[in-house]
Amino acid sequence: MYTKLWLDYETEDSGASVVFDELNPEDGKIRNALKELKRCSFLKDKTVRLRMIRDESLREEGYHIYGNDPEYTVEAASETGILYGAFRLISLIRLGFYEVREVPANGLRMLNHWDNMDGSIERGYSGNSFFFEDNKLIINQRTEDYARFLSSVGINGVVINNVNVKGEACRLIDERHLPQVNQLAELFSSYGVKLFLSLNYAATMEDEHVGSADPLDPGVRLWWERKFDEVYEKVPKLGGFLVKADSEGRPGPFTYGRTQAEGANMLARALKKHGGILIWRCFVYNCQQDWRDLKTDRARAAYDYFHDLDGCFDDNVVLQIKNGPMDFQVREPVSPLFGQMPRTNQMIEFQIAQEYTGQQRHVCFLIPWFKQVLEFDTYAKGKNPGESRVKDIVSGRTFDYRISGICAVSNTGNDENWTGHDLAAANLYGFGRLAFDPELSAEKISAEWIRLTYGDNEKVLRNLQKILMMSFAAYEKYNAPLGIGWMVTPSVHYGPDPDGYEYSSWGTYHKADCRAIGVERNASGTGYAGLYPEPNASMYENPETTPEELLLFFHRLPYSYVLKSGKTIIQHIYDTHFEGAEDVERMAELFGELRGLIDGKAFDRIEKRLAHQLWHSKEWRDVINSYFYRKTLIEDEKGRKLY
Amino acid sequence: MYTKLWLDYETEDSGASVVFDELNPEDGKIRNALKELKRCSFLKDKTVRLRMIRDESLREEGYHIYGNDPEYTVEAASETGILYGAFRLISLIRLGFYEVREVPANGLRMLNHWDNMDGSIERGYSGNSFFFEDNKLIINQRTEDYARFLSSVGINGVVINNVNVKGEACRLIDERHLPQVNQLAELFSSYGVKLFLSLNYAATMEDEHVGSADPLDPGVRLWWERKFDEVYEKVPKLGGFLVKADSEGRPGPFTYGRTQAEGANMLARALKKHGGILIWRCFVYNCQQDWRDLKTDRARAAYDYFHDLDGCFDDNVVLQIKNGPMDFQVREPVSPLFGQMPRTNQMIEFQIAQEYTGQQRHVCFLIPWFKQVLEFDTYAKGKNPGESRVKDIVSGRTFDYRISGICAVSNTGNDENWTGHDLAAANLYGFGRLAFDPELSAEKISAEWIRLTYGDNEKVLRNLQKILMMSFAAYEKYNAPLGIGWMVTPSVHYGPDPDGYEYSSWGTYHKADCRAIGVERNASGTGYAGLYPEPNASMYENPETTPEELLLFFHRLPYSYVLKSGKTIIQHIYDTHFEGAEDVERMAELFGELRGLIDGKAFDRIEKRLAHQLWHSKEWRDVINSYFYRKTLIEDEKGRKLY
Repeated sequence: MYTKLWLDYETEDSGASVVFDELNPEDGKIRNALKELKRCSFLKDKTVRLRMIRDESLREEGYHIYGNDPEYTVEAASETGILYGAFRLISLIRLGFYEVREVPANGLRMLNHWDNMDGSIERGYSGNSFFFEDNKLIINQRTEDYARFLSSVGINGVVINNVNVKGEACRLIDERHLPQVNQLAELFSSYGVKLFLSLNYAATMEDEHVGSADPLDPGVRLWWERKFDEVYEKVPKLGGFLVKADSEGRPGPFTYGRTQAEGANMLARALKKHGGILIWRCFVYNCQQDWRDLKTDRARAAYDYFHDLDGCFDDNVVLQIKNGPMDFQVREPVSPLFGQMPRTNQMIEFQIAQEYTGQQRHVCFLIPWFKQVLEFDTYAKGKNPGESRVKDIVSGRTFDYRISGICAVSNTGNDENWTGHDLAAANLYGFGRLAFDPELSAEKISAEWIRLTYGDNEKVLRNLQKILMMSFAAYEKYNAPLGIGWMVTPSVHYGPDPDGYEYSSWGTYHKADCRAIGVERNASGTGYAGLYPEPNASMYENPETTPEELLLFFHRLPYSYVLKSGKTIIQHIYDTHFEGAEDVERMAELFGELRGLIDGKAFDRIEKRLAHQLWHSKEWRDVINSYFYRKTLIEDEKGRKLY
Repeated sequence: MYTKLWLDYETEDSGASVVFDELNPEDGKIRNALKELKRCSFLKDKTVRLRMIRDESLREEGYHIYGNDPEYTVEAASETGILYGAFRLISLIRLGFYEVREVPANGLRMLNHWDNMDGSIERGYSGNSFFFEDNKLIINQRTEDYARFLSSVGINGVVINNVNVKGEACRLIDERHLPQVNQLAELFSSYGVKLFLSLNYAATMEDEHVGSADPLDPGVRLWWERKFDEVYEKVPKLGGFLVKADSEGRPGPFTYGRTQAEGANMLARALKKHGGILIWRCFVYNCQQDWRDLKTDRARAAYDYFHDLDGCFDDNVVLQIKNGPMDFQVREPVSPLFGQMPRTNQMIEFQIAQEYTGQQRHVCFLIPWFKQVLEFDTYAKGKNPGESRVKDIVSGRTFDYRISGICAVSNTGNDENWTGHDLAAANLYGFGRLAFDPELSAEKISAEWIRLTYGDNEKVLRNLQKILMMSFAAYEKYNAPLGIGWMVTPSVHYGPDPDGYEYSSWGTYHKADCRAIGVERNASGTGYAGLYPEPNASMYENPETTPEELLLFFHRLPYSYVLKSGKTIIQHIYDTHFEGAEDVERMAELFGELRGLIDGKAFDRIEKRLAHQLWHSKEWRDVINSYFYRKTLIEDEKGRKLY
């Protein structure tokens, strides 16, 4: 069995009466809306009216909810809007009802699953896949419950298989799997969620009659046209495909001297007539770099590979760009691609799997961090502030993109509680809510999630919210300092290893010596700072104006450099690392006060993980501090123990 | 198919005439001796007389070979001696015959295979197991050829399964596998090699009627007595068992508050009536150490756990002690247990698998290193030198041990060439020869192996011997400096990672800061140096008298410390690391000159591995040098590039 997360209100038949206006009761989404309302014990003796109206301002997925106990109305201009509205109504009544009229800000609000068909999950920290086992698809009650979770927060797309498409996953688009894929697509569709698949770009290589993956080869084009005809005949509601090409050993158009655009467009054109979209990842960089090479800067890679291709991509292609230029570190600047490709659809990729942020063994509520990214002003339309924040770019408002949005690498698996750490479900819920409405505050989102999951006890709300709201900052404090990143155990990406990536081929170096640390990324260095439009370029050019949380990302500086706080870098490192571990102590205390107020099983699980986090945050603290102490032999001003 | 290593002389029937004197031609070993002589094409028209004689000085396994072309005689006092002598005669004729009378110095001359029953090999670098596949035993022509290799160099014991006994291997002593185990034991026995198994100390835990592994529990004793009765009924020629207990997560007597001796004796007593011996590993240490703990010293562990138990072990127990106190590093002092347990059988454990010495991708001929260990004078019988060298301890001469000898963790797998690197077979051959006769020089052993494997070309002999003889020193030069060890990638143990084990729980720390490196192990530190008998204790106590190759193993010293060469430690590090990589360049050159003189397939394989080693030795050079350069910012005196 497994938990019901924030939808834990099940009853046999609530006795709610549901009235349809202008609706086809046989439609799958409407049926699911009805089913959901009938599940809610607290709707006994209430009436819910679901009404289809013509209102262009609600678009495809918006809704208007109003009414007074005991009668509520959900209006929408589509079945999807009705379904989303029904789920929202359920939450709102539980939270204390108020009238809302909501239209999602982003077109695409997606999850990427890195699930492999053998049941493993790449960077999965909550058990195995519930989509795949033994190279077969799984469709059961759990799948449907997952669709309900997504629908209830307005997530409207899901990629079910790993972007690194290997083994049996290469055959997901073959006859043998398509019936199950279609069943899954229909199930998700009935919850307002479109199914997508990750694609093996080099699939044509394995067909002996084609034997190439050159996007300009007519044989290759023809092969994909026929393949997509077959796929869409059998899976008509498929949303499209996600492709990772020319990256970390994956094949791609570079092999044939073609551009990323030529590769993407070849697939997109074959998809066009089916209404499918092609999502092309921009995570392209040289992962065979020589660590002695001081000129190459991985941070530049996505920009250098894609920027000049603006306008070259077809209109059913959307570029999926990681939030930062590296790879989901706890702190990175925003990718310089955002705002600088006005003629190319873009979406932003976050990761809620917590690969580098504690792997769902540490509490790390990511919504405050995602909000900082979304609020970042790209100044893409000139120096007037506020016209082209990241959230406006990816919502399509700044440049009127045809397709755009937000996605996240998912954090779910077949663990009893879905997300390994019970508190990590806040990231799943929060990501969906934030994608729907980027204006929501992290405080509001966390409060919603806590109340829907753990009920209305004030102390539970207060303490859990404190824990969530302090968790990201705490994690950052005991992690690598000042935006430097990557001080992590290679491969597993868990636990401190200050030199772990220092002599590797991954392009992730800090070059710490006994005097200074960092790679200079201004004009005197790799020039990365200059990739941003002004005034950001100038801001990042100079250590004095660089936001301090990113100081060592942009600049090589001596440990004696004095921060605005008046502290040297080395003292700042010591202080933040002691503070970070103390924060976790505080989190564990706050949680300890909830004994008896939270379901015992969940309480025990969370308590155990917090105990681990407390130990591990001290390990982080001492390893990072020792690393710098041994490098410098500079004592802590406060005389605390360094090893 | 696979290569025949140094026994590559096969023909259908050589036409040799073999004459038996006082021999039973039906005996398995005699049949195998005959079969082997008939294989040798170069014995056509020659006569070989095999004669059993009464000569106590030849003991169980010695032989006397004499004669003149075309008639040779092998005399021995046992079938095993005849078989070993026949193999030896074959080698000697190929090398240019001379009369020999040889009796093995060591009683036990064993290989330990770390093969798992699923076919994988722990620390195996030459393919999968040829003993196991899919949880079943394999017995085929390859098995027999392997027995021939062992017999031909006088290895007389083999443990076929991993000391970490898990999964199906726990059931190797059960009914289902015993018939195959017996078949294998008979096959090996017919080549003069005894079969041993690794045992799961906690097997009794899984029997619900016993449910304990307390060695003093009568139920536990009875269970093992019955088990060994069953095993020996079905496998009468089994040599005995090897046990790793209370180590790296393995269960053992400590769980029940019992000593290592109580654990070992319990098993040994149950084995006694079957003539079986019990090999008990001394690799016991705390692998959950806190890296901040400066008092615990893993180097002391085996001594601290075992020394006081001298005299407590039964006479059919033999302690298997790793050559050094840590774990097969490229340079360690000799374990202080050698010579300090006069009343307890001991054998020494080497590792030819090259876990920490290049994993059979680097050429690293280990015999020169093993010889240094065996020649080490323990002064166990007082201050007169030469009375108790390690070779005399483990041969049983110093203290008249009933059981003793030499073993090595094996380096073979199912690769075509058996050992991954073709030149790594020299370690297999060399280990056997050295165990038989520790007085042999590494030069002589390498020359024998080269000529038997690659024929009599003088240039091949000269160049390969140069490569082999310089390889260990070269590897040590580009590895961690001055005995410090462990600067290796965790888990895989391949490639440089100077801080890889620095903040771990494994008890392997160097504590390098910007001024000094090392853990002090003299009386002012952990006291480890004092564990040796005088004058060794005093020698190791003081940096000035410590052999410099072990300087940083024993002492914490500043980088500015001046060595006998007049160089500082930091300059020594730079110099040796540049030299090490240059040595590999020289090795590759020497090998390149042999194109056309060595079988093309083997040539290509070796050339490819040398190219990798050349690249990788530079990686070692630059990472280690950078690590110290960044720590100190001291420039190389010769102005070479540091990163």
